[in-house]
Amino acid sequence: MVRDKLMALLESKEEEMIALRRYFHENPEVSFQEKATADKIASFYEGKDVLVERHVGNGYGIVVTIAGNGPGRTIALRADFDALPITEETNLPFASKNPGVMHACGHDGHTAYLLILADCLISLKDEWSGTVKIVHQNAEEVGPGGAKSMVDSGRLDDVDEIYGIHFYPNFEVGHVHYAKGWAYAGCSEIEIKIQGKGGHGSMPHVSNDAIVAASSFVMNLQTIVSRRINPFDMAVVTIGSFEGEGVSNVIKDKLTLLGDARYMDLEVGQKIEKETRNLARGLEESYGVQVEVDYAWDYPPVYNHPDQVDMAAQALKTNGLGDYLKEVTQTPPNTGAEDFGQYLLKIPGAFFDIGASPENQEELYMNHHPKFDINEKALLVAAKTVGDVVLAALNKADSK
Amino acid sequence: MVRDKLMALLESKEEEMIALRRYFHENPEVSFQEKATADKIASFYEGKDVLVERHVGNGYGIVVTIAGNGPGRTIALRADFDALPITEETNLPFASKNPGVMHACGHDGHTAYLLILADCLISLKDEWSGTVKIVHQNAEEVGPGGAKSMVDSGRLDDVDEIYGIHFYPNFEVGHVHYAKGWAYAGCSEIEIKIQGKGGHGSMPHVSNDAIVAASSFVMNLQTIVSRRINPFDMAVVTIGSFEGEGVSNVIKDKLTLLGDARYMDLEVGQKIEKETRNLARGLEESYGVQVEVDYAWDYPPVYNHPDQVDMAAQALKTNGLGDYLKEVTQTPPNTGAEDFGQYLLKIPGAFFDIGASPENQEELYMNHHPKFDINEKALLVAAKTVGDVVLAALNKADSK
Amino acid sequence: MVRDKLMALLESKEEEMIALRRYFHENPEVSFQEKATADKIASFYEGKDVLVERHVGNGYGIVVTIAGNGPGRTIALRADFDALPITEETNLPFASKNPGVMHACGHDGHTAYLLILADCLISLKDEWSGTVKIVHQNAEEVGPGGAKSMVDSGRLDDVDEIYGIHFYPNFEVGHVHYAKGWAYAGCSEIEIKIQGKGGHGSMPHVSNDAIVAASSFVMNLQTIVSRRINPFDMAVVTIGSFEGEGVSNVIKDKLTLLGDARYMDLEVGQKIEKETRNLARGLEESYGVQVEVDYAWDYPPVYNHPDQVDMAAQALKTNGLGDYLKEVTQTPPNTGAEDFGQYLLKIPGAFFDIGASPENQEELYMNHHPKFDINEKALLVAAKTVGDVVLAALNKADSK
Amino acid sequence: MVRDKLMALLESKEEEMIALRRYFHENPEVSFQEKATADKIASFYEGKDVLVERHVGNGYGIVVTIAGNGPGRTIALRADFDALPITEETNLPFASKNPGVMHACGHDGHTAYLLILADCLISLKDEWSGTVKIVHQNAEEVGPGGAKSMVDSGRLDDVDEIYGIHFYPNFEVGHVHYAKGWAYAGCSEIEIKIQGKGGHGSMPHVSNDAIVAASSFVMNLQTIVSRRINPFDMAVVTIGSFEGEGVSNVIKDKLTLLGDARYMDLEVGQKIEKETRNLARGLEESYGVQVEVDYAWDYPPVYNHPDQVDMAAQALKTNGLGDYLKEVTQTPPNTGAEDFGQYLLKIPGAFFDIGASPENQEELYMNHHPKFDINEKALLVAAKTVGDVVLAALNKADSK
Repeated sequence: MVRDKLMALLESKEEEMIALRRYFHENPEVSFQEKATADKIASFYEGKDVLVERHVGNGYGIVVTIAGNGPGRTIALRADFDALPITEETNLPFASKNPGVMHACGHDGHTAYLLILADCLISLKDEWSGTVKIVHQNAEEVGPGGAKSMVDSGRLDDVDEIYGIHFYPNFEVGHVHYAKGWAYAGCSEIEIKIQGKGGHGSMPHVSNDAIVAASSFVMNLQTIVSRRINPFDMAVVTIGSFEGEGVSNVIKDKLTLLGDARYMDLEVGQKIEKETRNLARGLEESYGVQVEVDYAWDYPPVYNHPDQVDMAAQALKTNGLGDYLKEVTQTPPNTGAEDFGQYLLKIPGAFFDIGASPENQEELYMNHHPKFDINEKALLVAAKTVGDVVLAALNKADSK
Repeated sequence: MVRDKLMALLESKEEEMIALRRYFHENPEVSFQEKATADKIASFYEGKDVLVERHVGNGYGIVVTIAGNGPGRTIALRADFDALPITEETNLPFASKNPGVMHACGHDGHTAYLLILADCLISLKDEWSGTVKIVHQNAEEVGPGGAKSMVDSGRLDDVDEIYGIHFYPNFEVGHVHYAKGWAYAGCSEIEIKIQGKGGHGSMPHVSNDAIVAASSFVMNLQTIVSRRINPFDMAVVTIGSFEGEGVSNVIKDKLTLLGDARYMDLEVGQKIEKETRNLARGLEESYGVQVEVDYAWDYPPVYNHPDQVDMAAQALKTNGLGDYLKEVTQTPPNTGAEDFGQYLLKIPGAFFDIGASPENQEELYMNHHPKFDINEKALLVAAKTVGDVVLAALNKADSK
Repeated sequence: MVRDKLMALLESKEEEMIALRRYFHENPEVSFQEKATADKIASFYEGKDVLVERHVGNGYGIVVTIAGNGPGRTIALRADFDALPITEETNLPFASKNPGVMHACGHDGHTAYLLILADCLISLKDEWSGTVKIVHQNAEEVGPGGAKSMVDSGRLDDVDEIYGIHFYPNFEVGHVHYAKGWAYAGCSEIEIKIQGKGGHGSMPHVSNDAIVAASSFVMNLQTIVSRRINPFDMAVVTIGSFEGEGVSNVIKDKLTLLGDARYMDLEVGQKIEKETRNLARGLEESYGVQVEVDYAWDYPPVYNHPDQVDMAAQALKTNGLGDYLKEVTQTPPNTGAEDFGQYLLKIPGAFFDIGASPENQEELYMNHHPKFDINEKALLVAAKTVGDVVLAALNKADSK
Repeated sequence: MVRDKLMALLESKEEEMIALRRYFHENPEVSFQEKATADKIASFYEGKDVLVERHVGNGYGIVVTIAGNGPGRTIALRADFDALPITEETNLPFASKNPGVMHACGHDGHTAYLLILADCLISLKDEWSGTVKIVHQNAEEVGPGGAKSMVDSGRLDDVDEIYGIHFYPNFEVGHVHYAKGWAYAGCSEIEIKIQGKGGHGSMPHVSNDAIVAASSFVMNLQTIVSRRINPFDMAVVTIGSFEGEGVSNVIKDKLTLLGDARYMDLEVGQKIEKETRNLARGLEESYGVQVEVDYAWDYPPVYNHPDQVDMAAQALKTNGLGDYLKEVTQTPPNTGAEDFGQYLLKIPGAFFDIGASPENQEELYMNHHPKFDINEKALLVAAKTVGDVVLAALNKADSK
């Protein structure tokens, strides 16, 4: 049976998987600049009987098409490969050699496990039918991300379902978490530029104080969440940066606010944008300032399609649990953001969280921390998990 | 000498002055409804050799023209005659017989002293030259007041200078106070109607909360005084009424704010109006409410013309001090309002405060209090004070 | 089979049910004053072989205990019987004879169907085992409600499960709606008294403006929902009444705010209370006012216990659907409040919404509207629905 | 006559005055670091029959005592000598040789004219009686300034009157402006540090947003001027710096506000401090943040003593007008700050503004602008003006 062969093959390549992860970890590249990483990925497929398409989308995205032994469904598997502008503090022997850049979100592991899984699926392709598309995605960390452009490229138009995973250090290896329906928040980045008129601090009447206008704006902004959004809907609007540095006795002429909106429903995000713009226009009228609003739609919420979640969870409970998995748990959604949601706007599918809690680590360092690390045992778990899911998805009858 | 005769004549009529004051006190009429009061005043002049013009302006205003014995300057003297919608609590034997209406601002006394002064000037008109116009003004207490309409009537177009006084119970009989330049504040009444959309308290997203919008407006309104007005200029904006009574769990659909602006300079008042309207428009944009602003220009600031103040003060110091006056003092401006400012926009002149502190009264009851009273000895002081001023003004040489 | 007998018996008594409902409708009594209503209910049970306990809890609450033919589980069924201080505008022939009071929330129907259901269960008590407790609850409409005191009375300590229903005119007869888990919001009533210092509108520096302080408070209050509550939690804080009526040129000395908080989790309600009190203390320090906060815990959220919901829904789908029911639907929670949540804090159970859309009514009049009405066909549906649920609950094996 | 001799002597030394000014201009030093400047000043007095006291007060302050030919009054004359941290852009041949430092406020000219005036008074000291104290003050530009410490040193305890001047480029050479009573505003620098708690932008409930707290604070701060200060008093509170730079999706943990308060009355300044501290404490309670307030009393208002103003103005009108002066004008107070007010808290005196409008300059560059310059003809005018004032003050009879 192909499933047993796949599992065994994955096990035999665990060391290679770890070596690949360490290679990527040691050579991180920030979003939109992952040239060497993409070269490494592409070279992995050299000589293999697959179609490799490079520069898919807005950067170094790669789509690898693996044809099975006959017609069938097309299932995509996605891993992101960009790193972060963070200076690593892990002291790992394979720590970043690229100063100021670090794989602090586990994308090194995502790519490593998926390369090996792809390799095994290629080896076994006479034993399964249908098509598997491996999506090596660039630039997950920085809006607008790579996902949307890869979808827009048309290369995934024939995909029936898509799956992906993320490693998390805050739960154990062998555990898989998933949300059904809304899973991760959508997010938008908001930039507000307020232009008043400077002047001596003692002469407010011939100036136009941008700090007072901006303070009023921040207070008014609170009413979007408190009064405009359905209380049952998740919504957050944070102003994280109030760039109004100046001199004590000079009335501030202009300043910039930077903010972030989160929501589990695109309509909520649209309401936030609309009300933010209303408040900005109102501020112009009220305070005689000029206000420029840039509302960037970074990532949509990740909506895990219930049928795909159920099918995959069923596969994992049937095959994985008691084997390589200790627990498969449905969890509530979280407020993080992931551009995997871009795929799910067009293609049914689901996204799972894979426990990767490091051993013997006393303190927890979450994703994006300079001491973030994953347990490398999670690589094999991820490969088997997604392996079980993709086989189940390929075999799903009559669903298209 | 005419001045000595005038003083003696006034003294001889003190009792009549007091009787008149008590008559008016007993028969108060509110602003714009002073029909009987005007009849009483007009009847006082019957049979006297003067021109009595009634219904001057927007109500029961009366102008009485007294011609002297030859050509000369034209000096106007003004007293207001309306009462207030206050229930008297004085227990005076001549307390108001008109329930709910009271002469609680001393206009009864203003009218009484001026009738007697006019009478004496008539008796002595062969001994002075020029013209005196007695202005019995209606409706000082309620915007838009009677003053502006009496000015607009044209009946005072030939007036060279105008003078008036007000009784105050917080300083002694025999004292005269005056400000040079700005003396009383201008004031405007502001009405703001805010229309949102009601709804169940638990569903703010389908309602539009007028209370939150109005609260934001009140906070923004503070910035007019703090940021828009020259710090050297006097300005106050008070919201005295926030009419938002409703039910705890129902989102308030609409409400009304009532406010008052004070200023010593018409341009400051105009700035307040402009900024209030800007904030109202801004509120509409910000909160999606409808806002209606009614900004009523009640009274302009009272600006005491320096030359007239100096001339009059000089006359009082020379003639009155040590005689019927104990003190003539320049004071800073105050924040009260008076529609005498309407005359001074067009005609040079000045307005004086006359001490009328009641005897043996343990507690001070200011103007508009239900227990307000004046010392009736102040009537003769007022008559003599204004008598000295009008004679000095009539005699001023070459000034036209 | 007892179930078939019960259904047939209920059908035979539909007219009596309607008559009872009309009787209650015609004789409404407001919360805590339902003496005649309670007498009527008690008299209904006279001569029946049941234990009737009156004056249970803080008012006219009644608990009727029906013993079946042997030991078993104890299931409670609850109907509320108070009316509202609303002037009826329905023109029904049996409209309220008690001016200003109206059964505008369907409690007349709740009581009518449950009396008949109780009657039928009594008639058939040899055919079922266990105990049924009929809870006729007073004062559902006015905090603190009757429910908590009936629970605290101890008379329900032996109850294994409790069920209740509510009529709604906005969906069809034959439809049953229910939420699993959080179903209705908890609510608290908030009263904030702010004491400043009055004064003339032109002299803010010697006064202390309660309107400005309160406006700042309302703006700060928005941050509870926007910044203090987990964005995934439902929370609403509404100030529905800003009682600050005054005079335009007088600085307001004191005022009262009335508000309402809603939440689906008691801890969220507690957070709202804590932050409201912090903001009140902060207002005292900031503005030098005195602030008094009264935070009344009206009703907890209604939490429908999942096992009981599932059991009951299963019973309805198996027995009712296709028979007297057209649809049994799980719905999201709503923001309304119900003191049934008090029972569910202590006793497993569930609360269902019963469609009662009137026929031929062009406009929808929701609960608490003066023209609110229910379709009387819903009475029999309710009786059968709760009948099916109580039999299933009595029969549930081994669950205790 | 000594006055004529003084004027002639000053005229003869105009070139030296200009050379001194250029020397100081070329060698500017910032406040509290004016070592070379002080050395240059001290060296100027070497060999002259005067008492030179150095290091008076908190820095390089110098007091030079010139004894006349007999007992009499003691009159102090003050010039400040510090420069500003501004990069000069004038292209003058004698522009600053000290990069980043510039005499952009005319203190070079103040010092130059006063040195020459002192020199001439020394030359003529047999012809006048009494004592002249020349006060070369350090650090006028940076709070707490040098003035207070020079007063506190006791070296001026015997001074009867003190005078000073300031050059302004916005009115003509030959014009002298002065205010009677309040002349320059007092000012305080306010630093507010707000410490909340950082966190991910999507999880406000476990963070504590310093930006929202600070925005609320800025809005509340507006009510100090709008509601707490007598509307007739001058007061400004400006927050000129809101240092809240951060990251869009990270809740800001802490930030700093810098502000400036201006007032014409120390009690108003004290009220501003008190209310600022109240609002800070209120913010702590309301928002659970820690707030640190540093309220530095930089300079008191400059109060020109009316008798000294009148005496000096009279001297200038009598002697200077038509000679070296074209106009001597009383002006309203302005909102700038000057630490000359420190002297006037203890010693009667006055401060005058000297017109120094550059010739042929198309655009006006005010004090503190990198292109600021003065007309060097104003040096002689200043020397003569202060010369006339000091002689008149020395001669004032019986005034002590």
